Amino acid sequence: MPKRKTDAPKEPTVQECSGFILPIRDTLDIISGKWKLPILGALMFGSKRFKAIERGIPKITARMLSKELKELEDNQLITRTVYNTKPVTVEYEVTAYGHTLQPLLMEMKNWGEQHRKRIMGKRKQA
Amino acid sequence: MPKRKTDAPKEPTVQECSGFILPIRDTLDIISGKWKLPILGALMFGSKRFKAIERGIPKITARMLSKELKELEDNQLITRTVYNTKPVTVEYEVTAYGHTLQPLLMEMKNWGEQHRKRIMGKRKQA
Repeated sequence: MPKRKTDAPKEPTVQECSGFILPIRDTLDIISGKWKLPILGALMFGSKRFKAIERGIPKITARMLSKELKELEDNQLITRTVYNTKPVTVEYEVTAYGHTLQPLLMEMKNWGEQHRKRIMGKRKQA
Repeated sequence: MPKRKTDAPKEPTVQECSGFILPIRDTLDIISGKWKLPILGALMFGSKRFKAIERGIPKITARMLSKELKELEDNQLITRTVYNTKPVTVEYEVTAYGHTLQPLLMEMKNWGEQHRKRIMGKRKQA
């Protein structure tokens, strides 16, 4: 009779695995890329006009900024408000929901900091 | 005399900003990409041989798996042990340090899950 390893830790099924990985990827998609974090960072301290965000992020193009802001808006992390001034003013602001990302970002910051010290410390002083 | 806004929240300097964004990017680099999460997931339940990891991750090539394992090893998240069997056996295992990523991954999972419900629920049932 073949031996069965009944004491081995039960491995997750493929379905359980994707149930774990998929939502992590969703979160990654939202904060990954070159510009999302700098944009969220620029808005964390209050609402800003398009031009002010653009000035605050070196090398970003207006076209790219526009695209990224749209994605953040689609994900309900920021709001876009058009004021009926002459010329019109467009302001962006982090939503209350957007601020729910903050604890996660802080944890990523802390982990990344200790990791850099741990890894770079052994290789050479960066 | 020009008015000064003394009650406005103090904006971070460029240096403070990069001090915030840089370690987050470091963390992102480690878990982003197509394969890092599935590989870590496959190893979270115990050590595995190369072939077993490869079988567990659909579509990954041996070359890519090898590269990704090397990066995870460089970051001290997994260990690679060669056993002097015939033929040699190579086993990979998540380190205690690698397991320190788990709370962060769980938080990303939870945030991603509620986000998917929130966003997809409004668009259409996914």
